[in-house]
Amino acid sequence: MYKKILVPTDGSEAAEKEVEKVGDLLAEDGEIIILSVASELTPHQFQSKEDIDKLNQSFLDEAQFNVDKMKAKFDPNLNVTTKVLVGFPAETIVKVAEEEDVGLIAISSSGKGRVTKFFIGSVAEKVIHSFKKDVLLVH
Amino acid sequence: MYKKILVPTDGSEAAEKEVEKVGDLLAEDGEIIILSVASELTPHQFQSKEDIDKLNQSFLDEAQFNVDKMKAKFDPNLNVTTKVLVGFPAETIVKVAEEEDVGLIAISSSGKGRVTKFFIGSVAEKVIHSFKKDVLLVH
Repeated sequence: MYKKILVPTDGSEAAEKEVEKVGDLLAEDGEIIILSVASELTPHQFQSKEDIDKLNQSFLDEAQFNVDKMKAKFDPNLNVTTKVLVGFPAETIVKVAEEEDVGLIAISSSGKGRVTKFFIGSVAEKVIHSFKKDVLLVH
Repeated sequence: MYKKILVPTDGSEAAEKEVEKVGDLLAEDGEIIILSVASELTPHQFQSKEDIDKLNQSFLDEAQFNVDKMKAKFDPNLNVTTKVLVGFPAETIVKVAEEEDVGLIAISSSGKGRVTKFFIGSVAEKVIHSFKKDVLLVH
């Protein structure tokens, strides 16, 4: 059993499918942290600052929507918190996992509708190569 | 919770370290299958058939030792069976997982004292790319 479990989500069906099973892995007084990472756009010559700000806000809104949707999948009796951050997904996931000292990252093995050479998504791939504790790849 | 969990072991400390935690993930009437894969030597011009047979037998003995050692780590009340097979480790692990229709493979993320470019061992790496269901990488 784990005291802290990090559950990243990109809002995809894959991320949500059966990830709720991680509730079974949580110690009685444990905490589940749901995280969605919004990509940050940098200014581009063909876009106005206003457009960029709007897009960044829409990414943040989407990330918030993702974590709320995921939270609703868990037993309401569990201690579930949510986080929305801006950054690169894999790096941010591992950073949060380390800062929060989670014992397990439970992540979908497939990415957001991507067709990859391998079976697992690139974010999951990076996470398992960077995180020094347990990772549950959920299919 | 999982009805069937496959726990491969190469006899390394890494493989045994905390892998026993998977007992918590097992459904009440579930089964843990511990597997060790012995490599098979093929005849070599500088070795007699007798020597090859002896080596193959010693690999099988070691694999049997590995699964017995791992089995002793689990709660005796759990339904734990063991398997020893000859073959390539990653391929054999996935083949058994598919044949036995396990829901989870729980595998150590580090190999047998290997220094790898990445954090996870090559067998675990191959397993996560081939197995189409959940994988717990235990650190």
